Amino acid sequence: MNWRARLLKLDGLTPEIDDLGALAWGTLADCDPDAELVFLGTMEGKPCFAAVPPEGADGPAYAQPQIWSAMNLLSDKDLATYGGARSLVDWHARHRFCARCGSATEIAKGGWQRNCPEEKGGCGAQHFPRTDPVTIMVVEHDGRLLLGRQPNFPPRVFSALAGFVEPGESVEEAVAREVKEEAGIAVRDVRYVSSQPWPFPSQLMIGCHAIADDDALTIDKTELEDAGWFTRAELEDARAAGADGNDTLVFPRRVAIAHHLVTWWLEQKT
Amino acid sequence: MNWRARLLKLDGLTPEIDDLGALAWGTLADCDPDAELVFLGTMEGKPCFAAVPPEGADGPAYAQPQIWSAMNLLSDKDLATYGGARSLVDWHARHRFCARCGSATEIAKGGWQRNCPEEKGGCGAQHFPRTDPVTIMVVEHDGRLLLGRQPNFPPRVFSALAGFVEPGESVEEAVAREVKEEAGIAVRDVRYVSSQPWPFPSQLMIGCHAIADDDALTIDKTELEDAGWFTRAELEDARAAGADGNDTLVFPRRVAIAHHLVTWWLEQKT
Ligand SMILES: [Zn+2]
Ligand SMILES: [Zn+2]
Repeated sequence: MNWRARLLKLDGLTPEIDDLGALAWGTLADCDPDAELVFLGTMEGKPCFAAVPPEGADGPAYAQPQIWSAMNLLSDKDLATYGGARSLVDWHARHRFCARCGSATEIAKGGWQRNCPEEKGGCGAQHFPRTDPVTIMVVEHDGRLLLGRQPNFPPRVFSALAGFVEPGESVEEAVAREVKEEAGIAVRDVRYVSSQPWPFPSQLMIGCHAIADDDALTIDKTELEDAGWFTRAELEDARAAGADGNDTLVFPRRVAIAHHLVTWWLEQKT
Repeated sequence: MNWRARLLKLDGLTPEIDDLGALAWGTLADCDPDAELVFLGTMEGKPCFAAVPPEGADGPAYAQPQIWSAMNLLSDKDLATYGGARSLVDWHARHRFCARCGSATEIAKGGWQRNCPEEKGGCGAQHFPRTDPVTIMVVEHDGRLLLGRQPNFPPRVFSALAGFVEPGESVEEAVAREVKEEAGIAVRDVRYVSSQPWPFPSQLMIGCHAIADDDALTIDKTELEDAGWFTRAELEDARAAGADGNDTLVFPRRVAIAHHLVTWWLEQKT
């Protein structure tokens, strides 16, 4: 191994942050010699790696405040590096066995593949890191935006509705189904706005805008604790209030695509 | 089980087609009593199912001409039903074991989940059907469109370049990386056009348009056999020539999103 190679410092799946608020890096000498290594690419001329931890994620990320505080510190570039690394090492930690035959698998291609080795009795299948497409949508009716909150959200946080794209669906069909299921309303004119990777565990967030002709909500309480329509003034006031929000609303966090989608809507119409 | 329930007739993963060119359906009595059943939804008031075959897909779909001929016969509605069903039953057939601990898993939630049963020594993990986001892009330079062909394509077929979205990437980043890797050119102004599910095995095709400032190609021969720039007249002539194409070019098949993307480009500019 190249002695100049760098190892991303992780405590499980949580990034270590240095005194300057950046991702902390060590050398390959820091890691367990038996650890599986994932190649993250070359940065500043040095090959960079992350080690697969013994265990993958065992709970949702919103339950881990230390990850949120780390993410709020990081630059966009560090966020992207951490996000990609976390998705990959978590996938490896949760895929040590072959889903086709149950045999133990081995890391390959610098961590972008796992193989089920025929020479050890496996079936020869190749497995690739998984990324799940998720639609997330701001729905508009009569100048107001539909936002909802899940039961586990911190107080006063409302965000865009979202859900996994199911097999056999287009982006536009997934948006319409999700809004119908979660809020009981029909939407039209679904429009792509932007996308963003999200590393909990590995999602491609596909951000959309849609129009509702009706504002009478039927909320699916198994998915959402609450949902409602917010005026431009309410959203702008919450955004201006910063990370802690105002008395009624906390604007979506900077690192989430919902922040970008609502901001896009506010600025597009001004 | 409801005696009115319908079972999608599949030979392995290939659909059976009735005399009218539609998907053939039987009853639950037709299937192996031990088969795992996936619920496809209710159609015409009847619950519809598909049975998980003993084996999943063991090769790429383009190598199976009987599937292509079936797909060319089917209506859009039947194509969507078959595509969703095929993705799900193929996923089940290839995920009979837990990737986390190697134990045998069991179908759950009507086929939209597999569980690793703790009561049988498993780890309790839940597994969900997988859909991979793929970007597919028509790249434009000076009024011409970049298309390429993979070595396994039938003769004279050229299509839009495409590739999986990797962990940590946005749609726009994936488009730029793919075009750079496969054709050696930089693109700008990546724009979402439309999306479509693709059931081989289960992909969300995200169709985009992008602009290249340079047309000097460096083709990655491990990915593409050939690639080149096509004028509007060349594309319109191939489209008018129908499914078999003209002497130099076969227009992308109707069922593929590339057909829609190139058609969108031709019509948008007229
Ligand atoms: Zn295997
Ligand atoms: Zn398990």
